[in-house]
Amino acid sequence: MLAAPVTPTTEIDLPAMGARARAAGYALAALTTAQKNAAVLAIAAALEAHTPHILAANARDMAAAIAAGTDPLWVRDRIDLAQRMAGILHDVRSVATLADPVGHEFAHQTLPTGIHVKKRRVPLGVLGAIYESRPNVTVDIAVLALKTGNAVILRGGSDTLHSNLALLAALHAGLAQAGLPTDAIQYIASTDRRYVLQMLKLHQFIDMIIPRGGSSLHTFCRENSTIPVIIGGIGICHLYVDEHARLDDCLPVIHNAKTQRPAVCNALDTLLVHEAIAAEFLPRVVAHLGPAGVVFKAEARALALLSGAAAVSAAGPEDFDTEWMGLTLGLKVVSGLDEAIDHIRRHSTQHSDGILTEDPARAETFLNAVDSAAVYWNASTRFTDGSALGLGAEVAISTQKMHARGPMALEELTSAKWIIVGDYTPRP
Amino acid sequence: MLAAPVTPTTEIDLPAMGARARAAGYALAALTTAQKNAAVLAIAAALEAHTPHILAANARDMAAAIAAGTDPLWVRDRIDLAQRMAGILHDVRSVATLADPVGHEFAHQTLPTGIHVKKRRVPLGVLGAIYESRPNVTVDIAVLALKTGNAVILRGGSDTLHSNLALLAALHAGLAQAGLPTDAIQYIASTDRRYVLQMLKLHQFIDMIIPRGGSSLHTFCRENSTIPVIIGGIGICHLYVDEHARLDDCLPVIHNAKTQRPAVCNALDTLLVHEAIAAEFLPRVVAHLGPAGVVFKAEARALALLSGAAAVSAAGPEDFDTEWMGLTLGLKVVSGLDEAIDHIRRHSTQHSDGILTEDPARAETFLNAVDSAAVYWNASTRFTDGSALGLGAEVAISTQKMHARGPMALEELTSAKWIIVGDYTPRP
Repeated sequence: MLAAPVTPTTEIDLPAMGARARAAGYALAALTTAQKNAAVLAIAAALEAHTPHILAANARDMAAAIAAGTDPLWVRDRIDLAQRMAGILHDVRSVATLADPVGHEFAHQTLPTGIHVKKRRVPLGVLGAIYESRPNVTVDIAVLALKTGNAVILRGGSDTLHSNLALLAALHAGLAQAGLPTDAIQYIASTDRRYVLQMLKLHQFIDMIIPRGGSSLHTFCRENSTIPVIIGGIGICHLYVDEHARLDDCLPVIHNAKTQRPAVCNALDTLLVHEAIAAEFLPRVVAHLGPAGVVFKAEARALALLSGAAAVSAAGPEDFDTEWMGLTLGLKVVSGLDEAIDHIRRHSTQHSDGILTEDPARAETFLNAVDSAAVYWNASTRFTDGSALGLGAEVAISTQKMHARGPMALEELTSAKWIIVGDYTPRP
Repeated sequence: MLAAPVTPTTEIDLPAMGARARAAGYALAALTTAQKNAAVLAIAAALEAHTPHILAANARDMAAAIAAGTDPLWVRDRIDLAQRMAGILHDVRSVATLADPVGHEFAHQTLPTGIHVKKRRVPLGVLGAIYESRPNVTVDIAVLALKTGNAVILRGGSDTLHSNLALLAALHAGLAQAGLPTDAIQYIASTDRRYVLQMLKLHQFIDMIIPRGGSSLHTFCRENSTIPVIIGGIGICHLYVDEHARLDDCLPVIHNAKTQRPAVCNALDTLLVHEAIAAEFLPRVVAHLGPAGVVFKAEARALALLSGAAAVSAAGPEDFDTEWMGLTLGLKVVSGLDEAIDHIRRHSTQHSDGILTEDPARAETFLNAVDSAAVYWNASTRFTDGSALGLGAEVAISTQKMHARGPMALEELTSAKWIIVGDYTPRP
C-alpha cells in the first residue's frame, strides 16, 4: 500500500508542526528498542515499495536542475538517487542492527541520605535538520532520529523538493505500518526561506538544529537560531610533515588524504613541511600527486623550491583559508613544530589535522596543542567519519566543542536525565 | 604583594580581550593537574591577603545599593561578601582537591586498518560568564574554569562592579604568583550592556556562554548569542502526590521542598494531588505548611476543598507558569497520573519534578514521561544541585538537553577530541 505523496504548499503553520512533533517525540520516547527496530525495517520495506515513485520524482528534480543550467556532473553527484537506492535500503536496514543508546543507565551512586542517584540516556526530543541537495539525507536523518526515539522536522534543498516528498511518503507509510504517528517525521514542504528562519526560532519545540551544507548555511544557522546548532562539516584540513618523518611513507598518506575523495570535508587542504626537509620533499610531493591531477598553491618559500613545476602557482592571501573541495593543495614551509601549530590554529576549521613524524614527543605536543575535533599522528585525515571510525552511522561531523565533537552517531542524538529515588527523603 | 585593582573603563576592545583569552586558554590547556592545583591554592592565598580591599570595595557597592533604595535584606543576600569570605576561601581550596577531568582517555579502539582511535578529554577553551549580583560567582566560575584548563571572560552585575574588580585583582595576583597569564581570567569592567551583546557574538574566541541570573537574562542570551548558551537555573518545580502515596510521609517532603530555601531554583512551586485523596490530603498540606508562612494558590477543584482557609486564594491563569522564589505554593487536583504528566509537560521548566507514590509502575511511567533534568521518586526536589548530588562543585544548573543537563560540575566544562594514531596509514 502506497501513501499519497505530500504536495508542496506555500502556507505552513510551523508552531503547529512543532507541537505535533513534540507530541510524537513523547510517543517515540516510550518505545522499546524492538518497536523502534520494527519501524526502521518497515520504513526500509516502504522505501523499496515506493522506489518507482521516488525515482520518478527524482527524475523530475534532475530534469529541472539540468534545464536550469546546473552542471550534469553536479546533478549526478548531489541529486540523482537511481544509483543510490540499493545503498539507502542497505543503510536503513543496518540501522536496525545498531545498539540503541536510549535507556542506558550510568553514574549510579547512593548518597549518605540514602537516596539513589543515576543518569539515564534519553532521546533529545525533536531534531531539526536543514540540508541542501543530497535527498538521501532525508532518509539518513529520519531513520537515525527514529532509532534514538526522536521526532524530526526536516527542511531539504529546493532543488530536491519532489524527491524529498516522495521519500517522505515512503517514510510515512513505514511509520503507519509500524503503528507509529507520522508526525514523528515531518517535512517543511516549501522552498520559502522564511520558514527556515521560523524553524530556527522554534526553541519551544525543537531541541537541536543539524545543518548539513556549506559554510553559509552554518553561518546563517549560528546567527539566527535560538536553538542549539551543531556547527560542522567544514574542513580546512592540514598535515604537517616533520623533519623526523619517514618521507617515503608520507607520500601515500598525503596522496590518500588529498585525492581519495577530494570533495569531502576530511580531504587534505594544506600541507605544511619542515624547512629542513622541504627542498628534498616538496618536489617529491608534486611529482607524486601531480599525476592524479593535483594542482598546488605554494607560499613564497615553497614556491621558490618548486620553480618551474607547471602545476604549482603562488598562493594568494586567502588560499590558506579556503576549503578546496577539489584537487588543489596548499603548500607551506614552516620553521618547525611551533610554526606548524600556529598556522593550524589560525587557519584550521577545527575538523581534522595531523602530524607525520617519528618523534613521539613532537607528536604528543601536536596532538595536545591542535584544537581540532580529530587530531592525527601518522595517518590520513580521511578517517574522520562515522563509518571509518566504527560508529556504524553518522548524522553529521561536529567541529564545535559542546555536546558532540567529530562524527556524530546515535549517542550524540540523546541526552541524559538524572533520576533520584528516595524513601520520602527530605534534603538535610 | 597586592595587585593594583583594575579600574572601570568605558572603552573596551572585546575582540582583543577574546584573542588574549584564546592564547591564555592554549597555555592553560598544556598545564598539569599539579600546576593547576598550585594556581588554585595561590588564588586562595591571594584572596585571603586581599580580603580587606575586597570588603572595602564590597561595602562601597552595598552603600550604593542601599542609597539607591534597594531592600537591605536583598543587599545582604545578594551583594554582601563579609559573611561569605571564609566560605569562599574554603570552596576555592576544595577545588584543588577535586579530580581533574582533563586528560582522561576513553573509547579506545583498534580498527581493522591498524589505526588506534581514542578520545581524550580536553578543556573547552574559553568560557564566557554573564551574571547578576552575587560577586562570589566571580570566584566560583574563575576557579572552576582554571581547574579545567579554560580561560574565562566574566561580566558581572553593575551593582557589584567594585566588589568584582577587587576580587579580580586577587585572582590576578594568584595567577601571577603561580606564573600563569592573567589573561586567563578577564573581566568586562563596564556596566554598558552593549558589551554583553558584543560578547555574545564573539564565537571566534568564546566557546560557551554561562548565564547566571533570571529568565530575562537567559532569554536575552538565547536570542542574541552566536555562541552555545547553557540555559538553566529557572525552576518551576512540581511534586505529584499519587493516590498510592504514604500521605503521612509526603508532608515532610513537601515541607522540605517548599520551605527549606524558598528562593532557590529547586524549590517546589506546584503541588499536584490525585483526586482520590485530595479531599483528605489538601487540608493536611495547608495545616502542615501554613505555620511556616506558606500561602497557597489553588485552582478551582483544590480551592473548593479548602474553602475558608485564610492562606488559600484562587490561582490566576499565570500562576502555574510562575517560579515563586518565595513561600507561595500552587495547588491543583488532577484526575490521575496522565493529567499530572500533562500538566508538568505544559508548565515545567524541565528543572526538577517528582512523584510521591508506592506504585513502582506509576513511578517508572512518571520518571520516563517527564522530560526534566532531574526526575524524582519519593524525594524532595531540593536535591538538584552539585553539592547535594555529590559533584563537589557547581557552575550552573542546565535545563537544556545538549552537552550538559542538570547540575554542571568540572566535566561539563570540558570537551573531548578524537586522537587517531597510525603507521603512515591511508584510508582503504
